[in-house]
Amino acid sequence: MPGPAVKLLGWARPYQRRLLAGDISAGVIVAMMMVPQAMAYAVVAGLPPVAGLYASILPPLLYAIFGTSMTQSVGPMAIISLMTASSLAPLAVPGSALYGVLAAQLALMSGAVLLLCGLARVGFLANFFSRPVMSGFTLGSALLIAWAQVATLFGADAPSALTLVRGIKLHPASATLGVAAVLALIWARRSLARLLQRAGLPAGAASIGARLAPMLVVAAGSLAVAAGAARGVPTIGAVPAGLPSLNLATAASYWSQLVQPSLLIGFMIFLISMSSAQALAQTGARGPDDGAVAKPAANMELVGLGVANLGSALSGGLPVTGSMSRGAVNHAAGANTPLASIISALLLAAALVAPTGYLSFVPMPVLAATIIVAVLGMLELDTLRTAMRYDRSDALALLGTAGGVLAAGVEAGVVIGVLLSMGTLIWRASRPHIAVLGRIAGSEHFRDVERYPGGTHPSLLILRVDAFLFFGNVDAVVARIDEELAARPQLRHLVLVLSAVNAIDTSALFGLADINRQLLVRGVTLHLAEVKGPVLDRLKQSDLLRQLSGQVFLSTANAWDALTACP
Amino acid sequence: MPGPAVKLLGWARPYQRRLLAGDISAGVIVAMMMVPQAMAYAVVAGLPPVAGLYASILPPLLYAIFGTSMTQSVGPMAIISLMTASSLAPLAVPGSALYGVLAAQLALMSGAVLLLCGLARVGFLANFFSRPVMSGFTLGSALLIAWAQVATLFGADAPSALTLVRGIKLHPASATLGVAAVLALIWARRSLARLLQRAGLPAGAASIGARLAPMLVVAAGSLAVAAGAARGVPTIGAVPAGLPSLNLATAASYWSQLVQPSLLIGFMIFLISMSSAQALAQTGARGPDDGAVAKPAANMELVGLGVANLGSALSGGLPVTGSMSRGAVNHAAGANTPLASIISALLLAAALVAPTGYLSFVPMPVLAATIIVAVLGMLELDTLRTAMRYDRSDALALLGTAGGVLAAGVEAGVVIGVLLSMGTLIWRASRPHIAVLGRIAGSEHFRDVERYPGGTHPSLLILRVDAFLFFGNVDAVVARIDEELAARPQLRHLVLVLSAVNAIDTSALFGLADINRQLLVRGVTLHLAEVKGPVLDRLKQSDLLRQLSGQVFLSTANAWDALTACP
Repeated sequence: MPGPAVKLLGWARPYQRRLLAGDISAGVIVAMMMVPQAMAYAVVAGLPPVAGLYASILPPLLYAIFGTSMTQSVGPMAIISLMTASSLAPLAVPGSALYGVLAAQLALMSGAVLLLCGLARVGFLANFFSRPVMSGFTLGSALLIAWAQVATLFGADAPSALTLVRGIKLHPASATLGVAAVLALIWARRSLARLLQRAGLPAGAASIGARLAPMLVVAAGSLAVAAGAARGVPTIGAVPAGLPSLNLATAASYWSQLVQPSLLIGFMIFLISMSSAQALAQTGARGPDDGAVAKPAANMELVGLGVANLGSALSGGLPVTGSMSRGAVNHAAGANTPLASIISALLLAAALVAPTGYLSFVPMPVLAATIIVAVLGMLELDTLRTAMRYDRSDALALLGTAGGVLAAGVEAGVVIGVLLSMGTLIWRASRPHIAVLGRIAGSEHFRDVERYPGGTHPSLLILRVDAFLFFGNVDAVVARIDEELAARPQLRHLVLVLSAVNAIDTSALFGLADINRQLLVRGVTLHLAEVKGPVLDRLKQSDLLRQLSGQVFLSTANAWDALTACP
Repeated sequence: MPGPAVKLLGWARPYQRRLLAGDISAGVIVAMMMVPQAMAYAVVAGLPPVAGLYASILPPLLYAIFGTSMTQSVGPMAIISLMTASSLAPLAVPGSALYGVLAAQLALMSGAVLLLCGLARVGFLANFFSRPVMSGFTLGSALLIAWAQVATLFGADAPSALTLVRGIKLHPASATLGVAAVLALIWARRSLARLLQRAGLPAGAASIGARLAPMLVVAAGSLAVAAGAARGVPTIGAVPAGLPSLNLATAASYWSQLVQPSLLIGFMIFLISMSSAQALAQTGARGPDDGAVAKPAANMELVGLGVANLGSALSGGLPVTGSMSRGAVNHAAGANTPLASIISALLLAAALVAPTGYLSFVPMPVLAATIIVAVLGMLELDTLRTAMRYDRSDALALLGTAGGVLAAGVEAGVVIGVLLSMGTLIWRASRPHIAVLGRIAGSEHFRDVERYPGGTHPSLLILRVDAFLFFGNVDAVVARIDEELAARPQLRHLVLVLSAVNAIDTSALFGLADINRQLLVRGVTLHLAEVKGPVLDRLKQSDLLRQLSGQVFLSTANAWDALTACP
């Protein structure tokens, strides 16, 4: 099988100068947004904040070359960081050198998984999560992440938020700073854009300005610490200046223990990035030469994300993915092409090369506040609301996945999500649409007798199955045939019209052979009609056509004529 | 939700005397087959042989009351015993008292899982395994089981067959007995039925006689040991006489560790029993009042198996299921109703009440031989052969599942099997059949323009989707619309004909809303036609109809008339 047609830097060839202004402004703004976010998500992953900055330079550069989305912003992301933390927790102490090595190794292995999946063209794996399940997964993960930051927000000693519940022992200055930051961020989210607009900014600029609130809050908190106004508040401490050294340190004895986490993390990196890229494509973000509704090509996206994660591993980072929130800002700030990401990566690199002393004042409670407000902002209850009204089974799948993440952890949540997506699918697929056809008087046409009055014949039953036949619905076809036969004692011929059957899997093939055999016992012959070319070609490779008690007719009319001619 | 309509003893009310002879003869023959098999599968599970006999009394009695299949034979079964052994291996030493308690506890929990699934009516879970995947799972498990018995067959000391490979240290008398038993059993399988027929037996009786070969071989081996002709050969040792005492010993600290195994074992008990019951139903085995092609009702089968496993737990047994091989013998020996199973259970009980000293001579190598020949007989290569010719992706799923069981163990194999079944399903479902419709001249009828010449209109496109719409195929619908739109610059109206759409899930609902929004941007209005009643009722609960740029038409003809009337 050939690999996907990766069009490297496909956007750069036809680049036009008129796109440049937008790309530069978006690059600058995303870089400003990235600094606190990358550090915060490194903290979520249990890593020193600088690891997040490292993971925000090489990965977006590589994604700009190999990726598919024009305005995607690749870097650390809350849910992937949570999965990283939960995968590494049993293996090493957060903050230790081994932990850092394992985080990079996890990025390496996740990247390899993504790259291999892309080359094997299994992008259809994105369809293993339904939208409600994805929404439930995000809900559960966001609550887990927020909850884990509560202790830091209040300056509590213990790493777990549970301490707060048991006996509140908080650090007053930290708690004041943390709560103030949360309130400021919530206010900014709600009102800042409107305020800026009232102050004369155009709507777009006002909305972007409001998205920079986390950076301003972090800056204000750092100033308070630097000025000595918040004594004893824990800060992120010294951030080493300089670019990350490129090397691939791995811990040899941990490969096998990282296999399962890297499969789960690779899968979620892909799902999160795909849904972010699709949402961006739907907002109308397009490449310079692309007029259609841009759909990210799943297999190419896998390759782009794989290479980006290999880059993160190489620069001492952590698993990365496309982030919906940064992508939306990137797009709103005017990004036209991945050049915007290149600019923001170069700006971050420049910030690391310049003196980084000022970063050491960033107070942990304020970083916790940005995490809490950011992940709670990821919650979208629209899917739940819609599903509650529209389809209870989807709403249950959503809540089941969220509950699974909360109760059993984020890794088990992925498995639960897949099972719930598949469960709702199998349940629906097991009830295919099957129509009894009747002949429209004076014509060659046959239609559903429930919808159009059509002629039928007592010794002939014509059934059309409107679904591809597979292991999950072949029993339903058998049951329907049983039912129809019970009501038709005079029946001699059954014709299955396969005009809407795109495929028959091996299980359904055996099912048809069983039907043929059982009908024979009861004196009814089985015929097929309107079998599609590719389906018929496959059937010829099997024994079914040879064993078939009846014939294969080109058209339903042929079957009718042949089978009603003789008594 | 109401539970399934369990028709207790549904077969007993209309029982007719003419059925009795068949039931008695089948009961006797299955009992004779059961003795060596039940002991052997207890050994596979790591239990003393008598546990297998205990699990062959109460479970079939309870299944006769609660189950669905007329000729199913419930008791210990090779694959379920393998799963029991692999679940308990990390928790206790095989042969210890704790191990026995945990086996019963596992039966209890698996039974509870099955019972709850039955009451919750989630019998559709049987559709999580495709036929090729089931075949691959059986293949891998059979090889694992056979391999684990090789050491015992040769009388090697170590429990693992690997010892044989490293340095062959076998016990000559055991190896002789074991190999002789294997050869005798293979010969019986191949030639005994023919020989008996030539000796004057009718075909049916000859085939049943051949199936009793394991019992004869075990008896012959026991005689050899009792006569002192096979010194030093390990035997199963003293089998305590008397019925099992009914009590529910459980180990309190192991509940949580048995949750995952009991879910996996419960799932496989259900799958194995369902496929056995279906195969029996297809051979024409039916209840006394049942003329139709008897399909076991999945939810009732879950209840029957659940209660049977609770019974096994109560009598110190192990997880049980319906066995294809015993069921086939039961049916062939003339069983008409579950009375046959009741008779065979009572005979086994009688055998335990009588002196059991003779059982102590059964040589382990001979028991190993019966296991090896039995599980290799479970292999059916027909599915693999068919899939290889017919559908490579199904053949890959089969081999992938078998390889997964061999490489990662039987429990991981269940998960791999589910993922491969779902993978092939998602892959096929992501390519639904979509037809462009044209109007048949002078009629109200619209047909696929690829199949019938029909009238079209440059500003109107009519698409019919022949599949229910869900998260796995809505992207394909979007892609097809994009493609058709690119070829039709004059398009103003798109009509989606939903006559074959039985359901639209929440993901597809959001997908339709996206399509509606994107078409609007491009100046095309979206209409729906022939929406089924239940689907339309649901859509009315959502925002889609309110947001729809176009209309909902009762028929495609209405849509055509309305949309082609004005320029």
